[in-house]
Amino acid sequence: MIIMKSEATQEEIENVVKEIEKYGLRADVSQGTYRTVIGLVGDESKVPFSRFAILPGVKEAMMVETPYKLISREYAKLSGEESQHRVVKVGDIEIGGSEPVFIAGPCAVESKAQLFKIAEGVKMAGAHILRGGIFKPRTSVHSFQGLGAGGQEEAEEALRWLQEAGNKFQMPVITEIRGEGQVDLVAGYVDVIQIGARNMYDQDLLTKVARKGKPILYKRHFGAGIEEFLSFAEYMVAEENRDIILCERGILPLGKGRSYTRYTLDLAAVPAIQKETYLPVIVDPSHATGRRDLVFDLSCAGIAVGASGLIIEVHYNPVEALVDGQQMITPDELKDVISTCRRVHKAIGPRRNDN
Amino acid sequence: MIIMKSEATQEEIENVVKEIEKYGLRADVSQGTYRTVIGLVGDESKVPFSRFAILPGVKEAMMVETPYKLISREYAKLSGEESQHRVVKVGDIEIGGSEPVFIAGPCAVESKAQLFKIAEGVKMAGAHILRGGIFKPRTSVHSFQGLGAGGQEEAEEALRWLQEAGNKFQMPVITEIRGEGQVDLVAGYVDVIQIGARNMYDQDLLTKVARKGKPILYKRHFGAGIEEFLSFAEYMVAEENRDIILCERGILPLGKGRSYTRYTLDLAAVPAIQKETYLPVIVDPSHATGRRDLVFDLSCAGIAVGASGLIIEVHYNPVEALVDGQQMITPDELKDVISTCRRVHKAIGPRRNDN
Amino acid sequence: MIIMKSEATQEEIENVVKEIEKYGLRADVSQGTYRTVIGLVGDESKVPFSRFAILPGVKEAMMVETPYKLISREYAKLSGEESQHRVVKVGDIEIGGSEPVFIAGPCAVESKAQLFKIAEGVKMAGAHILRGGIFKPRTSVHSFQGLGAGGQEEAEEALRWLQEAGNKFQMPVITEIRGEGQVDLVAGYVDVIQIGARNMYDQDLLTKVARKGKPILYKRHFGAGIEEFLSFAEYMVAEENRDIILCERGILPLGKGRSYTRYTLDLAAVPAIQKETYLPVIVDPSHATGRRDLVFDLSCAGIAVGASGLIIEVHYNPVEALVDGQQMITPDELKDVISTCRRVHKAIGPRRNDN
Amino acid sequence: MIIMKSEATQEEIENVVKEIEKYGLRADVSQGTYRTVIGLVGDESKVPFSRFAILPGVKEAMMVETPYKLISREYAKLSGEESQHRVVKVGDIEIGGSEPVFIAGPCAVESKAQLFKIAEGVKMAGAHILRGGIFKPRTSVHSFQGLGAGGQEEAEEALRWLQEAGNKFQMPVITEIRGEGQVDLVAGYVDVIQIGARNMYDQDLLTKVARKGKPILYKRHFGAGIEEFLSFAEYMVAEENRDIILCERGILPLGKGRSYTRYTLDLAAVPAIQKETYLPVIVDPSHATGRRDLVFDLSCAGIAVGASGLIIEVHYNPVEALVDGQQMITPDELKDVISTCRRVHKAIGPRRNDN
Repeated sequence: MIIMKSEATQEEIENVVKEIEKYGLRADVSQGTYRTVIGLVGDESKVPFSRFAILPGVKEAMMVETPYKLISREYAKLSGEESQHRVVKVGDIEIGGSEPVFIAGPCAVESKAQLFKIAEGVKMAGAHILRGGIFKPRTSVHSFQGLGAGGQEEAEEALRWLQEAGNKFQMPVITEIRGEGQVDLVAGYVDVIQIGARNMYDQDLLTKVARKGKPILYKRHFGAGIEEFLSFAEYMVAEENRDIILCERGILPLGKGRSYTRYTLDLAAVPAIQKETYLPVIVDPSHATGRRDLVFDLSCAGIAVGASGLIIEVHYNPVEALVDGQQMITPDELKDVISTCRRVHKAIGPRRNDN
Repeated sequence: MIIMKSEATQEEIENVVKEIEKYGLRADVSQGTYRTVIGLVGDESKVPFSRFAILPGVKEAMMVETPYKLISREYAKLSGEESQHRVVKVGDIEIGGSEPVFIAGPCAVESKAQLFKIAEGVKMAGAHILRGGIFKPRTSVHSFQGLGAGGQEEAEEALRWLQEAGNKFQMPVITEIRGEGQVDLVAGYVDVIQIGARNMYDQDLLTKVARKGKPILYKRHFGAGIEEFLSFAEYMVAEENRDIILCERGILPLGKGRSYTRYTLDLAAVPAIQKETYLPVIVDPSHATGRRDLVFDLSCAGIAVGASGLIIEVHYNPVEALVDGQQMITPDELKDVISTCRRVHKAIGPRRNDN
Repeated sequence: MIIMKSEATQEEIENVVKEIEKYGLRADVSQGTYRTVIGLVGDESKVPFSRFAILPGVKEAMMVETPYKLISREYAKLSGEESQHRVVKVGDIEIGGSEPVFIAGPCAVESKAQLFKIAEGVKMAGAHILRGGIFKPRTSVHSFQGLGAGGQEEAEEALRWLQEAGNKFQMPVITEIRGEGQVDLVAGYVDVIQIGARNMYDQDLLTKVARKGKPILYKRHFGAGIEEFLSFAEYMVAEENRDIILCERGILPLGKGRSYTRYTLDLAAVPAIQKETYLPVIVDPSHATGRRDLVFDLSCAGIAVGASGLIIEVHYNPVEALVDGQQMITPDELKDVISTCRRVHKAIGPRRNDN
Repeated sequence: MIIMKSEATQEEIENVVKEIEKYGLRADVSQGTYRTVIGLVGDESKVPFSRFAILPGVKEAMMVETPYKLISREYAKLSGEESQHRVVKVGDIEIGGSEPVFIAGPCAVESKAQLFKIAEGVKMAGAHILRGGIFKPRTSVHSFQGLGAGGQEEAEEALRWLQEAGNKFQMPVITEIRGEGQVDLVAGYVDVIQIGARNMYDQDLLTKVARKGKPILYKRHFGAGIEEFLSFAEYMVAEENRDIILCERGILPLGKGRSYTRYTLDLAAVPAIQKETYLPVIVDPSHATGRRDLVFDLSCAGIAVGASGLIIEVHYNPVEALVDGQQMITPDELKDVISTCRRVHKAIGPRRNDN
């Protein structure tokens, strides 16, 4: 839609119409009391809107259509395709199905013993999928970067442990990749590939990961609006991989003074996204709050708001963890979280009408 | 605490020590490898920290103590005072007690008939307290400003309706004041006075309202951090009114593109605040999302995260509402919200250890 | 403009049209490939947009017109009124004229001697208007609140000093009011009334101050977008006071970790606002940065970006100041700021075409 | 520094001390009136602070030292190294020297003819370095992604054009890389490698680019605080590449309603960063504002605030540009920008004392 300035001349209006027609669309001119508004009839995605914004007499140019058509429920309906919520299958586990799914494990894999001990703990607590970080994105170059930083061999050994732990405790496994160099390697060992918040905008990485054909856990960047998040998810679906699990993990905190949580968990984004796309959405209360004493409360709230699952960091002794100990809970605490979340899920009952 | 620059001289360090001692505090000098850090021993609130920040050789000056001592649970414990969660009583209703409290009603009172019809509806749905806006804060001077804008007489009539509706349906009533000129008038008619988000920083208003001695519903500004929110709540408690109900109602949305919710509801703030202060916290899902189709989900999440109650906008026919129709639910929908929230509350069980 | 869902029925479209016509506007229906868009022809401000957002079949409802018509240059042009930049006159001083105006003085008036000494200093440095805070908005109830907090008499005495200092050094004076209770008193003593950032949304206060008929310095709230800022300025112009000086003073800082400036000075807002409204805009580098070592740089940038002036906090000995010493510069430093800013102003030359 | 809870026991304090000593640091215990604060004496970067935050009795654990030691001016002074502003040399051009440097060219290279025509234009206007985008990061997968998206051959051809244009018009050239797969290719053709805002957090990419040994233009992410920006720059310097040019290009806009600029240009960040690090800082007014009618004003402000240069998008006919036409200026307009900026630079004079 093009909004003209109130003082736009007839000639300027006609010029905009001509420009629109150049792209094979039809212009619908609506002369108002104060100004003229010109609608675009046809496929808006063919039009570079920024060009229209600087044509003489134009005040504003904006897209009316959704920029994420491939994952939009509205467009899916139009084309007669799948428009209900999609269920992403990871082995026997269904993400986006009728029951919430719990992904848990250590922030960083530190040793085989540590991983196996935690894997056993989270399995006993009721978790479905095992997480374990091998390539850690860190703010400081001087911090521990995960075992994967030790080189190809160490990375592969850690990946093997993860796979073995998954086999032993019968849980599919997930790890985060941080750069394009890790995609091939990681895809050989895990069931789900995680793309972290800091890599959300990495379109080359998205494309490369999507082509592996495995389910992807895709986290929202802490500075990304929902529209942007979904537009970038579209890069993966454009590679014909629809097994995308979206994850809300908190956006930048706002306001002066001490920050009481690491990020602001945007729980309203969960149902808002569910109304836009058929992809399932889960919540990460650990990174969002950065506080182990808030994980229980935010887990319950995440399930209550309608998330299809949670991803939670767990360590048998958080004080000993090399990374992010302050946000990890113990397997016992996880057990309490999972059982309470299940009760909350039941209390709410099946989600009302699907949009 | 004062952090010195690494190149600070001995003389500069001694000067800072002298300055600290001027305020009757003791300085604790700690000589590190790279720099010197000077702790302040004594009552930090007597010291204007900004002065220290510009003394020669100083890199950073910051307060270690909490700026909201009067409402802090930690300080309450120290002084042997009430440190558990406070229960604010409004008639028979207990906010911060064992059961969640539901406040509901129209965004704006439009007529006696409209108010009574909605009051009856929310009472039947299970609400405890009746809300109704008479003085509406609006972004545009050209929008409907509430019946209170019609002058003293019209305002008083609307307040009387509110009082009558409360009596008839046996619910205490609450309305928002927007300026100092309304305090005396409003205090004569309502059981709880609301200070809205936009007035959060209005310290003269806070003081004036607090002196009325009535319970106050105090909303966080959409640009305020938690520390700031609690520091301003302190203005009311300084007037010896401890019947303050804090309310999270959403902060500014972040990120480019369409905003899918009006604000970002910061649910993690609820338990984070509860750990800092003994005052009860409730949640407003209506203003936070600005979408009637999200109120159910965020209400459930609010109760799940541990809020002591909800404040929800209700209209029997949202399309007809003069203000904010897009975020109002019907009495029938409210009934569903309340009964589900009660089940969620039960599912979670009594809150674990208090801090 | 109303954007319909792609699956909207003909009946739903017709219903929207009927609703639009109820308000005396004409509906312009544009049937696109994917969806129907309905334009509103007539005075959009008569229409409560929120109602349309929840009519069946509606996806989005949004205003095309500017919500701040009274101060809009575009509307002024339409109605043949003043559309060029307005010059606000304060005595002989012209704000928005051909030369930048410098407002300077202490953050808080502490004593007559302190005020007079600073007044003399800023006059010598080249300042045009004297500022001095008497009612200080403070985050903590435990901090110094300005001499005005001492009661009516002390407030009046401080206001008299300000008036006397203005007379003695031949500068108009300005002070901030913080609540409605101070408006009458302050208006009797000062030439310009300041409404601070925290009171930006206080529509009752805006109305009350505007009616005094004096020039108003109106600061943008640190969480306010430009549209909101201008919409609230409209409250004052609706009282027929057009002597409004807008002031950019920084918005909330973003991002994790230490904040290197107190707020983020949004200098692009200056020309952006100037293109929207005829009101003059000035910049406050002192509160924006909260750092005396950045005031020079941001002052130069403020003038370079096209501001009509600056408001700067000055103290002969910042370390001694009771409030905000860390952001005050000395009269000597002010002299350097003013002379450099004048050179910068000249270097840029007269501003190019007005819109 | 570790701040203990007021109710911490002696045992808890001793436990923290022991933990600190485990890492080879010394603990400095300072017993205050309300609480105990424990300083860490030694190399803080060896300590995982998050562990301390969850030790029993601990209220807060925070780093006192700067996390970006390699690029810090304060640490450089300590170690007797270069601490003055660093001059990055690109051929004969000096970035961070006594004169501002202007980088200009098209947002996206579209054809050889387009590139050469613009190259000639910016050279005549006074630009020093030629920019041209070949791999474009775009929000929508459905938008034009730059010629580089056409595959290796097309990418290489476009890079050759860029090199040729640089040779012909005697300007070093710069282009943005978007993923690890482009690093080797691009490094063979350009003089400066750009890492864009969206890749700021991509530590694998940073490391890979840094190892090429070429100067790097490194843009701040729109959600990154200064501390984070500098901490990630440290990843490149850790690879012993100190030819890093930092670039401020705007952070997320804040506030409700229409956004009048694409991002918020944080000009105070320029001098704030200059006081922290010796690396030069430039400004990008094109992406920050997204409006060609604001580029002149923000360019002047960028130079006035002390930036070492500007990077500006230029097209001979912005309406025809395939990408971001709305923010490009013409070569003639660039000439005006450059000559005015030079006058502004002169008006301010040599920057005062370094720190």
